[in-house]
Amino acid sequence: MLLHFSPAKPLFSPPNLRRNSPAFLISPPRSLRIRAIDAAQIFDYETQLKSEYRKSSALKVAVLGFGNFGQFLSKTLIRQGHDLITHSRSDYSEAASSIGARFFDNPHDLCEQHPDVVLLCTSILSTEAVLRSFPFQRLRRSTLFVDVLSVKEFPKTLFLKYLPKEFDILCTHPMFGPESGKHSWSNLPFVYDKVRIGDEASRHERCEKFLRVFESEGCRMVEMSCEQHDKYAAGSQFVTHTMGRVLEKFGVESSPINTKGYETLLDLVENTSSDSFELFYGLFMYNQNALEQLERLDMAFESVKKELFGRMHRGYRKQMFGGEVSSEERPKKTEQKLLHDAAVPMKEISSSSSSSSS
Amino acid sequence: MLLHFSPAKPLFSPPNLRRNSPAFLISPPRSLRIRAIDAAQIFDYETQLKSEYRKSSALKVAVLGFGNFGQFLSKTLIRQGHDLITHSRSDYSEAASSIGARFFDNPHDLCEQHPDVVLLCTSILSTEAVLRSFPFQRLRRSTLFVDVLSVKEFPKTLFLKYLPKEFDILCTHPMFGPESGKHSWSNLPFVYDKVRIGDEASRHERCEKFLRVFESEGCRMVEMSCEQHDKYAAGSQFVTHTMGRVLEKFGVESSPINTKGYETLLDLVENTSSDSFELFYGLFMYNQNALEQLERLDMAFESVKKELFGRMHRGYRKQMFGGEVSSEERPKKTEQKLLHDAAVPMKEISSSSSSSSS
Repeated sequence: MLLHFSPAKPLFSPPNLRRNSPAFLISPPRSLRIRAIDAAQIFDYETQLKSEYRKSSALKVAVLGFGNFGQFLSKTLIRQGHDLITHSRSDYSEAASSIGARFFDNPHDLCEQHPDVVLLCTSILSTEAVLRSFPFQRLRRSTLFVDVLSVKEFPKTLFLKYLPKEFDILCTHPMFGPESGKHSWSNLPFVYDKVRIGDEASRHERCEKFLRVFESEGCRMVEMSCEQHDKYAAGSQFVTHTMGRVLEKFGVESSPINTKGYETLLDLVENTSSDSFELFYGLFMYNQNALEQLERLDMAFESVKKELFGRMHRGYRKQMFGGEVSSEERPKKTEQKLLHDAAVPMKEISSSSSSSSS
Repeated sequence: MLLHFSPAKPLFSPPNLRRNSPAFLISPPRSLRIRAIDAAQIFDYETQLKSEYRKSSALKVAVLGFGNFGQFLSKTLIRQGHDLITHSRSDYSEAASSIGARFFDNPHDLCEQHPDVVLLCTSILSTEAVLRSFPFQRLRRSTLFVDVLSVKEFPKTLFLKYLPKEFDILCTHPMFGPESGKHSWSNLPFVYDKVRIGDEASRHERCEKFLRVFESEGCRMVEMSCEQHDKYAAGSQFVTHTMGRVLEKFGVESSPINTKGYETLLDLVENTSSDSFELFYGLFMYNQNALEQLERLDMAFESVKKELFGRMHRGYRKQMFGGEVSSEERPKKTEQKLLHDAAVPMKEISSSSSSSSS
């Protein structure tokens, strides 16, 4: 980002240099006076102003958890000129220094740096453990706490319980990752909920400044409550991950005769296979709507199988017994009832689950 | 396709006109002689040659079954200048005339037109009924019989059984449809197996001419045995259709926060939802490899559920009993055994199928 300033007051000449420099003491003829020093001063002045402006718009961001996703976000933050410090359970000091971030082994040291923003990039499963043990008391009372977890209601509740009441809280979900956001974040959805932002204008400005990180990359900014997010995400993101994992287990592979539809399946597996089981389990356990969606997927699959086997059963019986067998479809009512009665698939699920542990 | 000819011999002048036309009898001064008639002759001559060339490269194609897919292929055949006649159980005379094809109510009338190629576009399920009743004896002994069914081994066997032994047989599968091939056929796979082509050069040339219909549209031409096709297609096309139908039943819907992965699921449903259950059932019943793939999909889905519920079971037990419970994963061996023993899921499938009919 290059900024050009046209200074309002005339350029000053550096008083120290003019007074002490031997060149000026000798006082050469006017035409031979060295004026280049002024030029150099202008350049320095601009640089100084620029770096001051940059400093004023830059945030000092502390990234907690420097895994796959933490590193992915950090790269963009650093590119935008923000000051990045980080701490992680494992030693990521090399990964940090390679992208221009400072790594702190000790979370107390990190906190004493007084970051403007603490960005939680740990896994969903370790959220509570991190919140319980982190030395928040060493941070400034006015700190913006942001998370990027893939579920939202669960961490929001924890933040309100564990974080100092002076902290601002911004719950976000960048709905992309190192794979889908590899080339650009343009038009990718960024969901956020301003859970608690203090009244002062500076606190609001800080929150907006953080949101601009994603806005300026072209993200589609979606303001939405944590509860609403979880409802949508269970029906879309969790289902996508489930399908991706099913197809990965199935072992889809490119063939010489891929149809367009089959290629969308291959894309899906590529898109989800780099994500950990940890994340998938997190989406399942920490979103109260996920189980219902898994049950619905199960029922949909059973329903497709039933259609195939039902048709086969009727067809074969017709061949065996001729016209005596009705070739009509079974009344839709029975199936509809099965599809809406959660008790049936729940029984199926728990029985298959218990049979697997025997 | 515009063709330009530069005639080898000098342009002839029309003798009749020159002799009888009153304009010539009056014999005006040389400079006023009407020479435009010659120009018109050249134009007619070119048109005539062009239409003769077109006729010689055009095929008379009889499309049997003028449903969705038959009409889809016919449009391109007609655009390429082939002569198209068609017959279908239902009356499609309007649909035919609207794209420039001639519809025949009576299959005998169609056959008496002596088409070069008979293109079977009926559903997989009705193939045998059509072959049994169609008046093949009215066709020329040298006829190229082509099918475009989505399974290949099954119709190949039927063709060798029912078709006159003088017929050429070309089994093909354009692996796209009205949805995926809407804008272009470029790079879409076209699978073919020259099951029986007579020795005469003209028969080979006719077969190549038919293949050029797809080649010239940019299809990726894949020569492959019918058996090999069915193996690949069960693992890709049938699985794609199954997933598409499962997601359609599940009811995926666009949300304000679609991830890229979720959008591939929406694409998949759009790509498969326009296909009939008839086709899906055909892919299942008439490809001997399909059941195995459905079982594998079932196992993969069960396996993903077991991972989730197993992890939950261990986690909860650990909370209940503390360190006394091993948090280790169950040995992979048990699961591997389940995944490769077809007996277990078959039992599950048939029990769930029979329970639904009670």
